[in-house]
Amino acid sequence: MYEGVVQDLIDELGRLPGIGPKSAQRIAFHLLQADTADVTRLAEVLTVAKSQVRFCERCGNVAQAELCRICVDPRRDQTAICVVEEPRDVVAIERTREFRGTYHVLGGAISPMDGVGPEDLRIRELFQRLADDTVTELIIATDPNIQGEATATYLSRSLRGTGLSITRLASGLPVGGDLEYADEITLGRAFEGRRAMNE
Amino acid sequence: MYEGVVQDLIDELGRLPGIGPKSAQRIAFHLLQADTADVTRLAEVLTVAKSQVRFCERCGNVAQAELCRICVDPRRDQTAICVVEEPRDVVAIERTREFRGTYHVLGGAISPMDGVGPEDLRIRELFQRLADDTVTELIIATDPNIQGEATATYLSRSLRGTGLSITRLASGLPVGGDLEYADEITLGRAFEGRRAMNE
Repeated sequence: MYEGVVQDLIDELGRLPGIGPKSAQRIAFHLLQADTADVTRLAEVLTVAKSQVRFCERCGNVAQAELCRICVDPRRDQTAICVVEEPRDVVAIERTREFRGTYHVLGGAISPMDGVGPEDLRIRELFQRLADDTVTELIIATDPNIQGEATATYLSRSLRGTGLSITRLASGLPVGGDLEYADEITLGRAFEGRRAMNE
Repeated sequence: MYEGVVQDLIDELGRLPGIGPKSAQRIAFHLLQADTADVTRLAEVLTVAKSQVRFCERCGNVAQAELCRICVDPRRDQTAICVVEEPRDVVAIERTREFRGTYHVLGGAISPMDGVGPEDLRIRELFQRLADDTVTELIIATDPNIQGEATATYLSRSLRGTGLSITRLASGLPVGGDLEYADEITLGRAFEGRRAMNE
């Protein structure tokens, strides 16, 4: 055990996701030996971020105002919504520059094991956005795992008969990967979703 | 890129040792979704630790006063000093409960490649502690790598002829490890340092 406040610091750092006791210790000593200005800046940005960042009232993405940057951008196509689980998924998709519509962040995925049902996610808010018929296309980009699939299935079933175009991101072999290292489920999906090359 | 302050938070977290961009992102979103009280506590402990923690004027360990807890503890044997590189090495050795003397934290190891010479470490302070002949035993516990070995060699040579008992922690096979997975240098050291079993 360290002297009181050093141990407090290690304990607090150790509560962060993915930071084990060893990492917490290394980070703590790094901070204790760093410039005071650097540590002050980190403490400040923590407080500022926490007080200023809110979640977009329309799509649930992170925002610094009532609506996020994407929702207020007039160049974005308001007829297409890409449904994701978390704000970081928005950033991942934005990086591809493939999608010019808007997003809807569910805040997770349906997971009965963890007690997360449709009513715990921002699904009602999604359906409200679909009510005025502006949106014609829904791209479901929940994670390619059991919970993400369950959520995608739930959404597509709930919206059956609405005339919306509903698609799901393709599953398959990761680009740049080796086929022999792919797990059997991914490989199975890659077969299922195979595309004609003579079109 | 995220909205301004979210990206600031990710950037600051990403400057911590061992935190890559992905981890910084995960931690940032964890904090944004955490209770404000938790984030405030983290920001506070950072500031408090930075302002209260100093380094022991005698041994260089972390301290909240002029001297650290170990240096002021009257039950510790003042005739033995264990020399380590960093404060976290003190904690590692304390955990073994094998050593009841005091410590001396060098603040690193001799590394000509990184421009670290003996004068950059707390070696002068160590020699000053040895000047009044209270200390009779020095245990060198620098890391078992090139820099740690160079430091140990430098110290033992500098103190030759002083009559001090100087020892170096044993190198060898880690307990619970498999011999076949040991690297050749460790295995070589284990041979060199082999101990009689028929004593």
